[in-house]
Amino acid sequence: MTDKIALVPATHTVPPAKFSHGVKKGNILQVAGQVGFLPHEEGKAPTPAGPTLREQTLQTLANVKAILEEGGASWDDVMMLRVYLTDVGHFAEMNEIYNAYFEEQGLTQPPAARTTVYVGLPAGLLIEIDALAVLG
Amino acid sequence: MTDKIALVPATHTVPPAKFSHGVKKGNILQVAGQVGFLPHEEGKAPTPAGPTLREQTLQTLANVKAILEEGGASWDDVMMLRVYLTDVGHFAEMNEIYNAYFEEQGLTQPPAARTTVYVGLPAGLLIEIDALAVLG
Amino acid sequence: MTDKIALVPATHTVPPAKFSHGVKKGNILQVAGQVGFLPHEEGKAPTPAGPTLREQTLQTLANVKAILEEGGASWDDVMMLRVYLTDVGHFAEMNEIYNAYFEEQGLTQPPAARTTVYVGLPAGLLIEIDALAVLG
Repeated sequence: MTDKIALVPATHTVPPAKFSHGVKKGNILQVAGQVGFLPHEEGKAPTPAGPTLREQTLQTLANVKAILEEGGASWDDVMMLRVYLTDVGHFAEMNEIYNAYFEEQGLTQPPAARTTVYVGLPAGLLIEIDALAVLG
Repeated sequence: MTDKIALVPATHTVPPAKFSHGVKKGNILQVAGQVGFLPHEEGKAPTPAGPTLREQTLQTLANVKAILEEGGASWDDVMMLRVYLTDVGHFAEMNEIYNAYFEEQGLTQPPAARTTVYVGLPAGLLIEIDALAVLG
Repeated sequence: MTDKIALVPATHTVPPAKFSHGVKKGNILQVAGQVGFLPHEEGKAPTPAGPTLREQTLQTLANVKAILEEGGASWDDVMMLRVYLTDVGHFAEMNEIYNAYFEEQGLTQPPAARTTVYVGLPAGLLIEIDALAVLG
């Protein structure tokens, strides 16, 4: 039997429930929904990187990336990104930030597929992203 | 060619459209969105386990589990749970129920990753959950 | 290392950001969220197939299918379809269209699992669908 491995970057806040920020089993890696929380500080509640879409999008992507790396994966291994926004009016700006970010990451493989939908999120959060990766 | 197998617990209501409650192909098992419907009774319309978040969450988890078991899998094989709630105000209570439930299940592997978002659901339904599992 | 291959049907509009309409790696194929845009015409902005749920659902399914076929897959390989609607009142009609469509496709394997939730989408769009397939 192949083990399922929890991927828990040291910088991440403890999940608010009994779930893993990421898991890997065989060549499949799943990243849980990430939001724009700053790296965990002892005794401090989870805090968004800032109130703006830009700050939260970049922090969310950094949080996803940290989990991928914890599992020995990179953006190149990601098959699917699910982007949850709270406001249709944020789509164009998110795409700009997203494109510039991935431009800088220097992908050597085609970009992942993506679905973007507009949902409710806890107060103060503008974006949530999860990811499915296939390694190897 | 590997067959795709439909996972159809005898207790489940017939899906309202041409989809399977679960499918398995090779080592991948996908559970369709489950809600808190009670086990099917001949000639009776699908009925939620009750009006409360607790009743519906526990029944939904039981419905997901029945499909996993139909495919020879268990909670330990689950990589990702997608939780759809209708109200941000339900997050804390859902987490309490979720944590207690998985505490009782006696997992031997790390818990699955999870994404929770807030969407619309048909009238009377407070929660929907689907699952991706990797077996073996 | 297995390559990740971008699946880009010639008929598809260019994605509005740095993502792929579909990707395939090994036996896993992921289709990005598709909407009811007509086949791309040079110099023309993406245009929905029409204002009705029927027109958009059928075009969306055709767009998903084109990506599956670009990757050497078919509906029979699809494990999961995620259907995003904007209005709970569209559920019954979408199911009718969905059932009739898949009846015509002549599946030789059980139908995919499915989750349907109600979200916000850009103005004018009534449905979005993405798909996960396992080949071979």
